[in-house]
Amino acid sequence: MDSIAFVKGHGTCNDFVLLPDSDGALELTAELAIALCDRRRGIGADGVLRVVKATADPDATPMADQATWFMDYRNADGSLSETCGNGLRVFARYLVDAGLSSPGQFAIATRGGVVTVWADVDGDVTVDMGAPAIASGATAVVGGQVFEGVAVSMGNPHLVCVTDTDIASLDLTTMPDVDVRAFPDGVNVEFVNIVGDRHAVMRVHERGSGETQSCGSGACAVVAALAAIDGTTTGEFVVDVPGGRLTVSPDDAGHLLLRGPAVLVAEGQWRTNQG
Amino acid sequence: MDSIAFVKGHGTCNDFVLLPDSDGALELTAELAIALCDRRRGIGADGVLRVVKATADPDATPMADQATWFMDYRNADGSLSETCGNGLRVFARYLVDAGLSSPGQFAIATRGGVVTVWADVDGDVTVDMGAPAIASGATAVVGGQVFEGVAVSMGNPHLVCVTDTDIASLDLTTMPDVDVRAFPDGVNVEFVNIVGDRHAVMRVHERGSGETQSCGSGACAVVAALAAIDGTTTGEFVVDVPGGRLTVSPDDAGHLLLRGPAVLVAEGQWRTNQG
Repeated sequence: MDSIAFVKGHGTCNDFVLLPDSDGALELTAELAIALCDRRRGIGADGVLRVVKATADPDATPMADQATWFMDYRNADGSLSETCGNGLRVFARYLVDAGLSSPGQFAIATRGGVVTVWADVDGDVTVDMGAPAIASGATAVVGGQVFEGVAVSMGNPHLVCVTDTDIASLDLTTMPDVDVRAFPDGVNVEFVNIVGDRHAVMRVHERGSGETQSCGSGACAVVAALAAIDGTTTGEFVVDVPGGRLTVSPDDAGHLLLRGPAVLVAEGQWRTNQG
Repeated sequence: MDSIAFVKGHGTCNDFVLLPDSDGALELTAELAIALCDRRRGIGADGVLRVVKATADPDATPMADQATWFMDYRNADGSLSETCGNGLRVFARYLVDAGLSSPGQFAIATRGGVVTVWADVDGDVTVDMGAPAIASGATAVVGGQVFEGVAVSMGNPHLVCVTDTDIASLDLTTMPDVDVRAFPDGVNVEFVNIVGDRHAVMRVHERGSGETQSCGSGACAVVAALAAIDGTTTGEFVVDVPGGRLTVSPDDAGHLLLRGPAVLVAEGQWRTNQG
């Protein structure tokens, strides 16, 4: 029987199929990612993370002196992604769990560059998400209501709308109406209620995916916007997403450190010749 | 590491986690079914099929002289179900694939009684779904449009609405409006276009699940209704569901034989102590 080994994991309900492939024997094509991520015909996930040595993949060899492992990442629709905060946490959890990295601080190569992570033998995993860039404001319209937003880049574009309207009441089944001239490549839109000191609750509509259970870069964008609004740039911020709890801490260099759960739930063999 | 062995499979995109448990060591509780079927935190499926010897489960021992294996079935919401046509096909495929049953005709014990199946070493699997019972008519209303339906019991209740309206245009995101007095236990509602001789296309809204990719008993109910409408009671009917193609053939005893694909896609270990 022909099969491919896989591990399944999630971070705040953003879930991934990991393909252990140390020596780069697999090719993670768009077709393979789509098949694996199919929630009824495949394993089911938001994306696929191929775990390959940086020396074994041409896209990662320039980073091989800084990181042993390369996260080759495709979304459920088959598209390539530079990186993913929740995916990096699950990837790091797997490396430690499988004995491929020692617990503690280590580096992971991604298409977006080398990323630093911290993963102990269990518990939360932290990822350095880099420095945010605040841009000008824009508005989002949901159900006829206009929300003022702050545009934040975390490498990918976000529009963070802090509001007193209960975000649980918003209908996010369709894309909020935003000025496409301000976001020619699309945008992830976060709606935020502040529920305590450095404690926010958010919902997110991700470009290409619709409303999701969690968005790590979105949580960082929210903290960047909150910091810009009230000038608080130190300490730990708690951001509750539908899939769980994330924390974000600015470091001395102005980078945002994203911390949260990363859980491996299953491992097995995926049949490639399904009758 | 504590873990539970599983197999994942689907029949026309109605998907299941199978738990091999020959000697009845596992208890398939509602909580376990809910956790396994969670599509992000668990394996993800429409239901769980525990594979246990009939002699090893008190619910099945009265049937142990007729069937070696018992299909202990729970839905994704944790509720018990008597049986499931798509689930039985996948269950039979697993028994043959794992060498637990010889290919050909054999019997499976379910909470709804002993069921006969036909499974070769590969290809489609056939299930004897029993005899339909036609009841009086009723109507379903979708988007203000009234559809005349035929009430059919396949053990579970169905309302089959054959229509000239293109069923692809119907909004089935909410339950069609039916007379609850006619269906005190709820009802599965099928919308059907006839596209050829003994060839129908259907969509189904299942009670408790919403619109689904496939419903085996629903396909049988549709054929029972078509047969009642035009008096055709022999030969093979093709019923296309969103998840694939099913065929239904009345046998000499008036039972409906449901045939369709049953595919095993993966096997592995589910971690029971997830960090």
